[in-house]
Amino acid sequence: MHNLSALFAPRGIVVVGASSSPEKLGAVMAQSLSSYGAPVELVNSRGENGMHTSIADAAAAIPGGPDLTVLCVPAAVTAQALRDSAANGAKAALVCAGGFAEAGGPGIEYSAQVKDAVRDTGIRLLGPNTSGFFVPGRNLRASFVPGVAELEPGSVAVVAASGGVNHVLAFHLQRSGAGVSLAVGIGAGTDITAPDVLDYLITDQQTKAVALHLETVSDGPALVDAVSRLSAVKPVVALVVGRNDVSEFAQSHTGALATSWRTTRSVLKQAGAVIVDDENQLVAAVTALAGRRLAPAADPGVGLITGQAGPGLLIADALHGAGVAVPRLAQATQDLIGTLLPPLTFQANPVDTGRPGPGYEKIVAAVAADPAIDVVAVYGLTEPVTDLPLSVVESGAAEAMPFVIGVDGPEGDLERARKSAQQHDLPLISGPTSLAQGLIALVNDARGQFVRSLAQERNFTWPNVDGPWDENRAKELLDALGISTPSRRSCTNRTAAHEALQELGGPVAVKLLDAVVLHKTEIGGVHLGVKSTEDIDRALDALEAAGAREFLVEAMAPSGIDLVVGVRRDPVFGPIVVLGLGGTAAEVYADVSIRSAPLSDRAAEDMPNELLARELLYGFRSGPMLDTAELSAVLVKLGDALVSNEAIAEIEINPLRLTHEGLVALDAVVINVEEDMK
Amino acid sequence: MHNLSALFAPRGIVVVGASSSPEKLGAVMAQSLSSYGAPVELVNSRGENGMHTSIADAAAAIPGGPDLTVLCVPAAVTAQALRDSAANGAKAALVCAGGFAEAGGPGIEYSAQVKDAVRDTGIRLLGPNTSGFFVPGRNLRASFVPGVAELEPGSVAVVAASGGVNHVLAFHLQRSGAGVSLAVGIGAGTDITAPDVLDYLITDQQTKAVALHLETVSDGPALVDAVSRLSAVKPVVALVVGRNDVSEFAQSHTGALATSWRTTRSVLKQAGAVIVDDENQLVAAVTALAGRRLAPAADPGVGLITGQAGPGLLIADALHGAGVAVPRLAQATQDLIGTLLPPLTFQANPVDTGRPGPGYEKIVAAVAADPAIDVVAVYGLTEPVTDLPLSVVESGAAEAMPFVIGVDGPEGDLERARKSAQQHDLPLISGPTSLAQGLIALVNDARGQFVRSLAQERNFTWPNVDGPWDENRAKELLDALGISTPSRRSCTNRTAAHEALQELGGPVAVKLLDAVVLHKTEIGGVHLGVKSTEDIDRALDALEAAGAREFLVEAMAPSGIDLVVGVRRDPVFGPIVVLGLGGTAAEVYADVSIRSAPLSDRAAEDMPNELLARELLYGFRSGPMLDTAELSAVLVKLGDALVSNEAIAEIEINPLRLTHEGLVALDAVVINVEEDMK
Repeated sequence: MHNLSALFAPRGIVVVGASSSPEKLGAVMAQSLSSYGAPVELVNSRGENGMHTSIADAAAAIPGGPDLTVLCVPAAVTAQALRDSAANGAKAALVCAGGFAEAGGPGIEYSAQVKDAVRDTGIRLLGPNTSGFFVPGRNLRASFVPGVAELEPGSVAVVAASGGVNHVLAFHLQRSGAGVSLAVGIGAGTDITAPDVLDYLITDQQTKAVALHLETVSDGPALVDAVSRLSAVKPVVALVVGRNDVSEFAQSHTGALATSWRTTRSVLKQAGAVIVDDENQLVAAVTALAGRRLAPAADPGVGLITGQAGPGLLIADALHGAGVAVPRLAQATQDLIGTLLPPLTFQANPVDTGRPGPGYEKIVAAVAADPAIDVVAVYGLTEPVTDLPLSVVESGAAEAMPFVIGVDGPEGDLERARKSAQQHDLPLISGPTSLAQGLIALVNDARGQFVRSLAQERNFTWPNVDGPWDENRAKELLDALGISTPSRRSCTNRTAAHEALQELGGPVAVKLLDAVVLHKTEIGGVHLGVKSTEDIDRALDALEAAGAREFLVEAMAPSGIDLVVGVRRDPVFGPIVVLGLGGTAAEVYADVSIRSAPLSDRAAEDMPNELLARELLYGFRSGPMLDTAELSAVLVKLGDALVSNEAIAEIEINPLRLTHEGLVALDAVVINVEEDMK
Repeated sequence: MHNLSALFAPRGIVVVGASSSPEKLGAVMAQSLSSYGAPVELVNSRGENGMHTSIADAAAAIPGGPDLTVLCVPAAVTAQALRDSAANGAKAALVCAGGFAEAGGPGIEYSAQVKDAVRDTGIRLLGPNTSGFFVPGRNLRASFVPGVAELEPGSVAVVAASGGVNHVLAFHLQRSGAGVSLAVGIGAGTDITAPDVLDYLITDQQTKAVALHLETVSDGPALVDAVSRLSAVKPVVALVVGRNDVSEFAQSHTGALATSWRTTRSVLKQAGAVIVDDENQLVAAVTALAGRRLAPAADPGVGLITGQAGPGLLIADALHGAGVAVPRLAQATQDLIGTLLPPLTFQANPVDTGRPGPGYEKIVAAVAADPAIDVVAVYGLTEPVTDLPLSVVESGAAEAMPFVIGVDGPEGDLERARKSAQQHDLPLISGPTSLAQGLIALVNDARGQFVRSLAQERNFTWPNVDGPWDENRAKELLDALGISTPSRRSCTNRTAAHEALQELGGPVAVKLLDAVVLHKTEIGGVHLGVKSTEDIDRALDALEAAGAREFLVEAMAPSGIDLVVGVRRDPVFGPIVVLGLGGTAAEVYADVSIRSAPLSDRAAEDMPNELLARELLYGFRSGPMLDTAELSAVLVKLGDALVSNEAIAEIEINPLRLTHEGLVALDAVVINVEEDMK
């Protein structure tokens, strides 16, 4: 049994600090828990209303002892109550109150005492500073918000950083018809954090899909591992707050691009989560995903059957905007549909049926049977004569294919459609855009699992190259990793530079070579297009005047599209790989793709597709064509290199130029961990 | 009285093609209309159930004659029925059926007959191919969808391109609590189109805000004028479908950037509409705007009071992402709030109150009184002890300041909060993100009205410059318009070119000068960095070999940020001005700002702020700082120039370089209308 079963399915509960004054939180909590099926015993130090006066007494009244203790006592006495609870058999505790570390003053001491109590006793603690949790299917509601009594059992688990957001999501999921199986507000996260709850959910039978809300992440790898394990079993949708927070990790150019918001979303996606932008999308996504999941696939096709063209256009536009395929149906499918619909309607996908009539279920079956279709969406205004969920069942296709039903209409009709959908175990969403968001989530879940399924182990050995990392050494490292660099000569005098020019042929680039100068261009350390001996002498004059004692003479690369590729150590998630467009675009458009390392080939291949400017990489205006495998190899190798060598803080290739002859690293920087600390 | 009053407030209705068979549309429509307060007379050619057998008989039964005729007859006889209706006093008609031009075949003829009948009789026609309209406040429901009987009177008018979307929006607005005052599906738009209905709404007392859904626009200027007139009186929110349609207007570089979707959104924004991305945002926006509108302002400040920090963070994040100010409250305000709240909560804005308690209304009053605040949002989970709308009323601030209330909770609590909000005439929205979307709409409406309020008339005379438009002539035009260009000499021989180099000093650019070559660089017609007589001779050799007979020798501009500015004639909206970043960025990131010309100074000043890459223009990494007024003058002048000269199809400056010395036009193209037709 999972160690959080004591929290989420306790055999008995002790409420400490219960009260008979209805306005007190201890009274509200006792009232909220009173509907639970197992014994709930109340402790009040003054013995009000015949309540127990000690935890020991209350625990003794529960056959087999209490699993869970709910503490509604001041911060100052919480640690002792935790110890008493553990001593009397409690294996889990909920502390809702504030007044601990976040309050400063004596709260810091109370917080330390609570941590000690947890460590000493092994009791699992949810909180402090949370509004609790609830498991409607067990009538277990540990919350101060009275409305949770109205929540019915559902199929979505909510794991929220904030107790408030936990309640908001639960109420919205109730309204969407999906409902909650279990909902937790993590609060301060002194002991139990999101990864613990995610692990618990792996085997929670009532939970079909998981809604994850994150504000900050303390242990990145633990979160990634938990999401990866859980998403292999059931879909996880993540909402990360803080898009507009400025980055706290602006140490280097690449670093400045990768705010923790972006990084968190990227690595969770890589771990198999579906990422959404707001709580409305979150609700639509888990409502769709609480039905049947799509099989892992790179590009699943959506079949869309709509009763009205206008809403159909809204749905198709949203799907298209998210890069979700609405493939043209096969001719045979269209021919079959042609026998079922009047000739005026659009039948290639979306299939615009007009008002659903007799034979509608045959159209549904035809679309579902099309080889290009992996999920079918059926949308219509409610009509008293049509039961869309029933039509889907009657099509006989719902056994073999995931469906999502979209319905709009007056509240009563909508409620009837929802009931029918629940009865037939089909997800139903109201609103064209929300339906599209649900479909996008289904498709992104299938894509995430497709990439995830191909994660692989590799051997990697750091090559025989070491610092100090001037540009030449950095490029030797790249050479050793199999990443193309221009032909070059490192020179310490003019004769060598002249010879290098002759060997390489002009024009060449002449650059200052110094491991401590990271931004050569800004100090005039780069001279391009050097063709003649006179040119090279002029360049060397300038470099020497700037203090240079060593030079790099390098063949000029052909023109192309400049990318930036970097690997660095994220303070939360560890080694990460960042790909962006060169120049200022990556920054001003925040157009970067991020993954944690080591990364699979498939995850690396996915990165350029995430760039908003991806069309630039594939023969834009007769420009060069990216070989995705070539770029993928660069990203994988750099990631492996960083993972394998603890002494390296960062490797950046800026620019990595995409040319008609392939990728070539024009400049490279390697930073050691010690330098990075400076 | 407006001529659409016959449609939306008829003194009597004749339903032609009514039926006694309940499954027929004529029966459904007759049933739907039966609740209307004025006489509704039914016509059935076979006289079923004692119905009239002619329009004349039905009309005679209505005192004063029928204003409206609703035709449920086949397309083939619709034109005659229209003529009969008009002859018997009908001033408006609704035709829901399809089978006209969109069906091809005989439908094309039927469509022409209908147009003739409308022209000959002057009857106003809604349809064909629409699911009708409804005015719940008058119990007038001309719709085949039975659920509309459940719609209660509200304050938002819906003007939708599609009948299906009209119904979807009406049901969602009913659920949001705002409700509909009037809702119309335009359908084919043979006679009545969106601008007609928008004009009607100017004086419709029940309508407080307007939701506009557009698929295609036939008459751009009529739409812009109607939105401009209406938005001056009440807020208009527009949802434009077709983001992912490819552009049909890819005639020139600038043209290719401006798809009709972008152009439509841009010019409607300029006309004073609030632009949204989907129907969920649309519902949130009009729900907020159906309350009190903000005063016109460039950057209104939002005060946010929230009972829970987690949802507050979601709201603040969304506001921040949309560029909406949540200004820090004045110290005096914070001091006052400090006396009302425990010290732990965040009080600078957002004001995190925790569970609202006694004195809450004083906090509301304090935030509303802060000089930086123009609208207050109050959010909380429903609590049995707290009535948020009532607290706002008790604060005494709701008279002087717009408020939006956000509430989440179980359905029953939410419904009670909604009733309280309606009673106190305050907008209420459920969900943190939806609340933020409502606030964003309020702020964008105030910004739109601020820009709109400063539209001005100007005199403009086309300068004494004419084609053929080689680069030199084009730049002479810019000079005459007061737009900076580099010093240059047009030369037809080497001696002149050598003299020009001497006069201008090196380095110079040497360019082919030919009015028929639009893309000089691509054919090697541009030589940059020419310093010496030998250099210039080499350049001229190359240009002459390429067939050049005239050259431009031009001073090189300092480095900077390249913009593209163009004016052209949009096929739907007429003269438009486009501003984008130079290079490929404008294209791959679709980062352009569009306005219709002539445009006000304020509208022009707004354009650079719309660019995603705007930070590049304001001293990015010690780069040049844009003088917004200087750019605004360029945009305004180009727009005025295009408007004033019908012979010109397009003027493009590419690049317009932003340097430390200001803006300079490095290349310019002027295209005549005839050339454009080629």
